[in-house]
Amino acid sequence: MQVPLLNDRDIEFLLFKVFDTADVLCRERYSEHTHETISMTLQTARNVAEKYFLNHYAKGDAQEPVFDGQKVTTIPETKAAWEAFAEAGFFSATCDFGEGGMQLPYIVMRAANAYFYAANPGTAGYCLLCIASADLLETFGTAAQKSRYLPHMRSGRFTGTMALTEPAQGSSLRDISTKAKPFGDGTYRLFGQKMYISGGDHDLTENIIHMVLAKTECPETGKQGISLFICPKVQVNDDGTLGARNDVALAGLLHKMGFRNATSTVLNFGEQDGAVAYLLGELNQGLSHMFQMMNDARIAVGLFATASGYQGYNYSLQYAKQRRQGRNSGASKQPGGGTQVEIIEHADVRRMLLTQKAYVEASLAMTFYASVLFEDSQSAESSAEREAAAALLDLVTPVIKSWPSKYCLAANDLAIQVLGGAGYTRDHLVEQYYRDNRLNPIHEGTEGIQAIDLLGRKVGTDGGAVFARLLSAMGADIQRGLAGSATAAIAASLQEAANELRVVTEHLLEDMGRDREAVLANASVYLDFFGRIFAAWMWLKQALSAAACLNDSGTTQEHEEFYRGKLHAAMFYARWELPKFKREAELLTGRYDEPLAMNIEWF
Amino acid sequence: MQVPLLNDRDIEFLLFKVFDTADVLCRERYSEHTHETISMTLQTARNVAEKYFLNHYAKGDAQEPVFDGQKVTTIPETKAAWEAFAEAGFFSATCDFGEGGMQLPYIVMRAANAYFYAANPGTAGYCLLCIASADLLETFGTAAQKSRYLPHMRSGRFTGTMALTEPAQGSSLRDISTKAKPFGDGTYRLFGQKMYISGGDHDLTENIIHMVLAKTECPETGKQGISLFICPKVQVNDDGTLGARNDVALAGLLHKMGFRNATSTVLNFGEQDGAVAYLLGELNQGLSHMFQMMNDARIAVGLFATASGYQGYNYSLQYAKQRRQGRNSGASKQPGGGTQVEIIEHADVRRMLLTQKAYVEASLAMTFYASVLFEDSQSAESSAEREAAAALLDLVTPVIKSWPSKYCLAANDLAIQVLGGAGYTRDHLVEQYYRDNRLNPIHEGTEGIQAIDLLGRKVGTDGGAVFARLLSAMGADIQRGLAGSATAAIAASLQEAANELRVVTEHLLEDMGRDREAVLANASVYLDFFGRIFAAWMWLKQALSAAACLNDSGTTQEHEEFYRGKLHAAMFYARWELPKFKREAELLTGRYDEPLAMNIEWF
Repeated sequence: MQVPLLNDRDIEFLLFKVFDTADVLCRERYSEHTHETISMTLQTARNVAEKYFLNHYAKGDAQEPVFDGQKVTTIPETKAAWEAFAEAGFFSATCDFGEGGMQLPYIVMRAANAYFYAANPGTAGYCLLCIASADLLETFGTAAQKSRYLPHMRSGRFTGTMALTEPAQGSSLRDISTKAKPFGDGTYRLFGQKMYISGGDHDLTENIIHMVLAKTECPETGKQGISLFICPKVQVNDDGTLGARNDVALAGLLHKMGFRNATSTVLNFGEQDGAVAYLLGELNQGLSHMFQMMNDARIAVGLFATASGYQGYNYSLQYAKQRRQGRNSGASKQPGGGTQVEIIEHADVRRMLLTQKAYVEASLAMTFYASVLFEDSQSAESSAEREAAAALLDLVTPVIKSWPSKYCLAANDLAIQVLGGAGYTRDHLVEQYYRDNRLNPIHEGTEGIQAIDLLGRKVGTDGGAVFARLLSAMGADIQRGLAGSATAAIAASLQEAANELRVVTEHLLEDMGRDREAVLANASVYLDFFGRIFAAWMWLKQALSAAACLNDSGTTQEHEEFYRGKLHAAMFYARWELPKFKREAELLTGRYDEPLAMNIEWF
Repeated sequence: MQVPLLNDRDIEFLLFKVFDTADVLCRERYSEHTHETISMTLQTARNVAEKYFLNHYAKGDAQEPVFDGQKVTTIPETKAAWEAFAEAGFFSATCDFGEGGMQLPYIVMRAANAYFYAANPGTAGYCLLCIASADLLETFGTAAQKSRYLPHMRSGRFTGTMALTEPAQGSSLRDISTKAKPFGDGTYRLFGQKMYISGGDHDLTENIIHMVLAKTECPETGKQGISLFICPKVQVNDDGTLGARNDVALAGLLHKMGFRNATSTVLNFGEQDGAVAYLLGELNQGLSHMFQMMNDARIAVGLFATASGYQGYNYSLQYAKQRRQGRNSGASKQPGGGTQVEIIEHADVRRMLLTQKAYVEASLAMTFYASVLFEDSQSAESSAEREAAAALLDLVTPVIKSWPSKYCLAANDLAIQVLGGAGYTRDHLVEQYYRDNRLNPIHEGTEGIQAIDLLGRKVGTDGGAVFARLLSAMGADIQRGLAGSATAAIAASLQEAANELRVVTEHLLEDMGRDREAVLANASVYLDFFGRIFAAWMWLKQALSAAACLNDSGTTQEHEEFYRGKLHAAMFYARWELPKFKREAELLTGRYDEPLAMNIEWF
């Protein structure tokens, strides 16, 4: 059964009705683009994704990459997909025209990427990492570094990775033990092992440019710091040809539950003389530099999660419209019992579909909202606007990363349940979406890490000023919502929740001054609480736009149904999902301490 | 990393402290058994499970059974496990001594089986199906039928299946189309296709006895009914030797996300002259007869789910005690930062472990409670007691099937999260538990089917009299709980919830008279609501027993910690999980109708 990638209608709605992409197109940098060229770009993305990525989604899962001790072999479709992505220019989508790029708005680039994530997250993962590491080089590289690597990364000749994690530490980056030793000629030699490095080896390209965190020691003070390094798998000569093989060796592939077509690797740096590496950016600023890529990747994870959730929804929706089974309770009372009905006729199946819709469409809106902020942080007119957008993005990043990861996985669970026994077989893709999506609450910072980041750091930034701005943006939408008959109830429920979000947050920030550990112990509850309300805001935004469109006399029947669906899903979310915030507020302000108080010996 | 199967201490606690197995042993049928012989039996089960089942848990997943068009091949360990199970006498555990059985109480047999489910659910699935189909034959078979098949099923020479589902119907059994035609000699010929038949073919034994539902037609009236048939893969001669191959053919194996070492099959009956079959029990009573096996299987599913959940908990607990990572927030402020701590030191990891504990130990208690009821329905002294127990069991069966299926899967999700990236690799078993466990909310009646069964049928049985008895049993424990200082808070929260369970149920039963469809539309919410409160009762029972044991002067330090853990987990459940019932009560009594009201065109 083949189903559409995402929903073109929904993407159009988000880009041009809910968020103001038309306004972005008015910015000078994007003056060559129009609504029409954007639509064509998205269509290209969808076509390439369908033809070159979707074609091996199941195959790449069944035939995962193999390492024979010498080299890694992926199925050939992966390389073909990589090349098609490069050919279509998506590696340099946001680069200047002058550099051969499309000079595309970031928000459009992200929307385009969503099609690839939906078609084949494993294969698309290689592309994402290459783009994000090229962007890192773009920001922090010297002119010489850029000219040596960037053209090849933007053309798809080389891939890129981010190499942070090590076997003895996962979430705790300060504990890495990989060493970078100055070689005396301005270069460094790396010694250490990195683990869970996605795309750390493969046969897609002739070279891989690793972005590696390693410890450096100040020769005078002996003080250690973490710095960021460029470490190519193969040295690159001045003329762009390849030089000697670097001292980076694949120790092995990790075999995963899902996301199998993307290699996850253990890499040994410096088993012989040390891996030749080049400092990227400033010494001892490695973590801070890396966070550019990490934050990008966190938003991308939210979008990956959304895409898999969306595909499960699409799949189970189509199945439910076709599969006949049982009767509705009215019919069963008739003589003869009537014929079986499509399972979408059953209220419980509709509940499972509506819940999926509520989760995945809120997630898509959320990731687009993050893209708008990113766009503004780059291209808004004034520096004040750019800084304000960047600060807001920083605040919501843990939520954008984690809410879709949790709830789109829950959506995938429901997609399986809609199919019943069929959903548990590998004849249908829903089980693969579920396995693939299970990665997202883990990588690029687990849920627990995001929670501590949000409560322990982000909401308190600038004495809570950024958080206050978020609430005020929410408040503005609430006021608009309260004024409309179709949205008043939705807005009213968000108003109550947003108020509680403010009260609880203030309470916790104050409490943290007294007992940080006890408050942070329930940070995961806070993350869920925050995300739940944030998602409700995304639904209010969609409801507002849908209501406006319904009032537009030009709306066709088909579009009318789309908008009514948005309003109904928003109402469902407001009544079924949002109210759970009350219980979470109780747990948080009452500082329920059972987990913290549990003795280890009692387990 | 190898972890214990379940927790012997917990099983002992449930059998002899929470539930009154000592009392069961006083019944005449069990007079040969003592606490000691029971413990030895359980130890045998654990040993056999560890040696012959656990040994190929991962292997049977990686090398699932293969069908070459002629025959099915499983890994050899599966057959060895089957034989060890037979050798140890577990196929006839509850049979009379006179028949070569162990005459074991059912509750002990179920506890023994739990070790096998924990060690290898796929392989144990073959055993379960054989026992349950033999029990069905025992109940409904003629003397001739019993003597022809039973000895071979009880000895492990033959296996058994339940063949209900068909491709064109899953949950809707009334729509099966497999036909049974009388052959004129008292036998029948079956024609039709069955799907998702677990253990429908394999290479463990020389014969498979299928229990098949098929439609029969009354020659006079033309009215169709569903009857139950015995249909052996190979005919069995009077002397027990095998006769001709029957007209039952394997059309193919289904390839699943998990539970892979158990074959799931499509079977064709009657591709040639018809599959020879024998009516089991009465004509047209097939569904009703089958429900004996189905109800057994539903309890077993609850126990399977529990076992996988429990193993994930054990695994992640042990991992969390060993893996060092990060620091607690106190330590990080010290100069130098201190060494990394075991991750169990982190409150969020403890939260994930405590949540798992709360889910899996409540689930185990729940399935044991069902076993107690089953035991009483068979061996209680008076027929009134037996009937009362049977009625209660009937009421709670949908909950016992579904609550562990949902929450132990949630526990498995948390187990993965505790391990982080490691949990997503196939180097650790937690991902397999998660994949295996995902079957349980589907088979033997999906969550939606259980929900309709509970709300649409069970709670209203006898005008609600059985439900009232359940509440009254709960009430008695609440009163005991309120009287103890360690349990008063737990009991008080359950008291509020139990009262709400009564009020909401009465409200819904009344409402259903007016608009059954609208009320049943939210049956899944009711199932969750009921299960949540039922699980809280299981925790109160455990808390009561733990408090009593703590007061016992003979309690050792190690046991004291076990009991304190029980009390703490009960409190955690009462404060973190139980209160969600309030929101569910609102949805139910307010009859929130968004799923029912969602237009199909709006999706």
